[in-house]
Amino acid sequence: MAETPEVLRRTMKMAKRPLLQVLAGETLSPPPVWLMRQAGRYLPEYRAVRATQPDFIAFCLNPEAAAEVTLQPIRRYGFDASIVFADILLIPHAMGQKVWFEKGEGPRLASLSLQDLAKLSPEGAADRLSPVCETLKRVRAGLPDACTLIGFAGAPWTVATYMIEGAGSKDRWKARSAAWSDPATMDRLLANLADATADYLIAQAHAGADVLKIFESWAEGLPAPLFDRVVIAPTRRIVERVRAAGITAPIIGFPKGAGPHYVHYAQETGITAIATDHGLDTGWAVANLPASMPVQGQLDPAVLKAGGKALESEVRRLLDAWAGRPYVFNLGHGINPDVPPENVGALLAHIRG
Amino acid sequence: MAETPEVLRRTMKMAKRPLLQVLAGETLSPPPVWLMRQAGRYLPEYRAVRATQPDFIAFCLNPEAAAEVTLQPIRRYGFDASIVFADILLIPHAMGQKVWFEKGEGPRLASLSLQDLAKLSPEGAADRLSPVCETLKRVRAGLPDACTLIGFAGAPWTVATYMIEGAGSKDRWKARSAAWSDPATMDRLLANLADATADYLIAQAHAGADVLKIFESWAEGLPAPLFDRVVIAPTRRIVERVRAAGITAPIIGFPKGAGPHYVHYAQETGITAIATDHGLDTGWAVANLPASMPVQGQLDPAVLKAGGKALESEVRRLLDAWAGRPYVFNLGHGINPDVPPENVGALLAHIRG
Repeated sequence: MAETPEVLRRTMKMAKRPLLQVLAGETLSPPPVWLMRQAGRYLPEYRAVRATQPDFIAFCLNPEAAAEVTLQPIRRYGFDASIVFADILLIPHAMGQKVWFEKGEGPRLASLSLQDLAKLSPEGAADRLSPVCETLKRVRAGLPDACTLIGFAGAPWTVATYMIEGAGSKDRWKARSAAWSDPATMDRLLANLADATADYLIAQAHAGADVLKIFESWAEGLPAPLFDRVVIAPTRRIVERVRAAGITAPIIGFPKGAGPHYVHYAQETGITAIATDHGLDTGWAVANLPASMPVQGQLDPAVLKAGGKALESEVRRLLDAWAGRPYVFNLGHGINPDVPPENVGALLAHIRG
Repeated sequence: MAETPEVLRRTMKMAKRPLLQVLAGETLSPPPVWLMRQAGRYLPEYRAVRATQPDFIAFCLNPEAAAEVTLQPIRRYGFDASIVFADILLIPHAMGQKVWFEKGEGPRLASLSLQDLAKLSPEGAADRLSPVCETLKRVRAGLPDACTLIGFAGAPWTVATYMIEGAGSKDRWKARSAAWSDPATMDRLLANLADATADYLIAQAHAGADVLKIFESWAEGLPAPLFDRVVIAPTRRIVERVRAAGITAPIIGFPKGAGPHYVHYAQETGITAIATDHGLDTGWAVANLPASMPVQGQLDPAVLKAGGKALESEVRRLLDAWAGRPYVFNLGHGINPDVPPENVGALLAHIRG
């Protein structure tokens, strides 16, 4: 009798990955769970590796170190998914804008005009990020079969706000003003970012990512005409380009802070599943997001910090609200560094019973 | 024949105030218009007064200087409403927490524990802010009859976030964590703030404010159970206390960033009118906010900075969307200091034709 072909064995294994089952439309109880920024500073074992990696960008592009921190939370907690350790600002780095991190202050990017930013070419950017693909391969080799591997990138608008502001900013004022006053140049920058990002996500899928996630961390504060132009159109461009390359991996979109725009985003970008932030009214989301679309989210990281009865009650509220729907348990934003690791254990106990 | 009694003369004059007409449910075309932070740094005449007032809190409590900057934009543009120049952090100042402003960095507040903050008494806080009432009287005397005078305060949750964080913060992390982990103490602080704020608004109404506005600048990022507890309940407490004092002035609520929670806020707080932020989907707001409730907003301040065709198009979009409804034209957030004053003139020309 012939051996089971490799492709079939892979497919059989993947069929047992709970996150993939839910993203294919199944309802699981308990739902699969993972946490944004689960590889991060709240873990002492992460801080130990970080201490050996003074340059954050170099850390992200060091497959050995990045794979190690990606695997740490899987070993400790047995999450249903692993998300590759990387950063949304690798794309501007790969396109030629200098990016660095000021200790305790966050990212800084070289000051360039919008015109100059729009001249940065998407060509070859994904190739320069091949170390992230090497990380994905190493992580896959170290993961349990049932654990889904997620690749990700920042969405063009969110990445563009950092490129234009030169740092994180309270209200993305320069970026928003530029979007209104020079739409042609802004749209060129966003299209270039979409193309580089699509290539990067395609490469991650080829390297073993089962699922792709697009982080639109700054979807808040955008009037409808701007939301359509700077969020929906570039995201759709990415999804179309990824699909045109033959990649069938589910794509999770996360338009953080989009409020009622969430519905248009879910309907018009071509994404497979939608991640919800903790500020989005749950009852409204249940009633208004497409009923067959898998939903991920939306525990407040602050209640994970608080723990105790409040955490238990919020977990119960979310499980009840999404019962009977394809649902992935997660936070509504990344874990903060001061969350006690034992609270994450308590969270998993509440979910898995 | 007897003279017209003073009270009747006042009522007749007030009936001609377009903002009051709209807040009473009338539809006006063109709608009345004013701008959040219209007395501010984008105006050279404001910067000239500010230069003589090194201490920002003292500036807010100097009736002569505060009345002057309040009147400046009325003289320059003829807005339909004037909002008293003050700051939402006058309440913690009046309750005994030290507040100061670091140049170029924003507000700073003395570090106090949540327990100590919850012990600050609301008693007498409004009395200590009597200079703001003096400002209102001076402004009223300098305003055209048709111009509505607005008094305001910060909402308890928003003010509490500054009191707890000691400054503005990106995600109100400490405040949100405290709201989950120590609800009893947090609710006591919010109730005290609500009482001090209600007393302060009552005093402003007695001093001549025709309309009262409650700024919930940080309504974003709150899960439903927290939104109900920290936003809706304290706001309702203010509204009830103001009404119990016999004040009939319309009250505008502004839960910035609340997304779909806007509907509950509109229905459950007792406010008269609702102000919308620029990130709230306009089509959704038209379809879902109570049809008879006056709505204010929601031009993106960034398009006011951009000016030109984009500004014209956005003004038209908002006028069309709210046609046939009681509507007040305004921004979705305060004016930024780098908005060219001539763009504000262009805005008024677009609205008033």
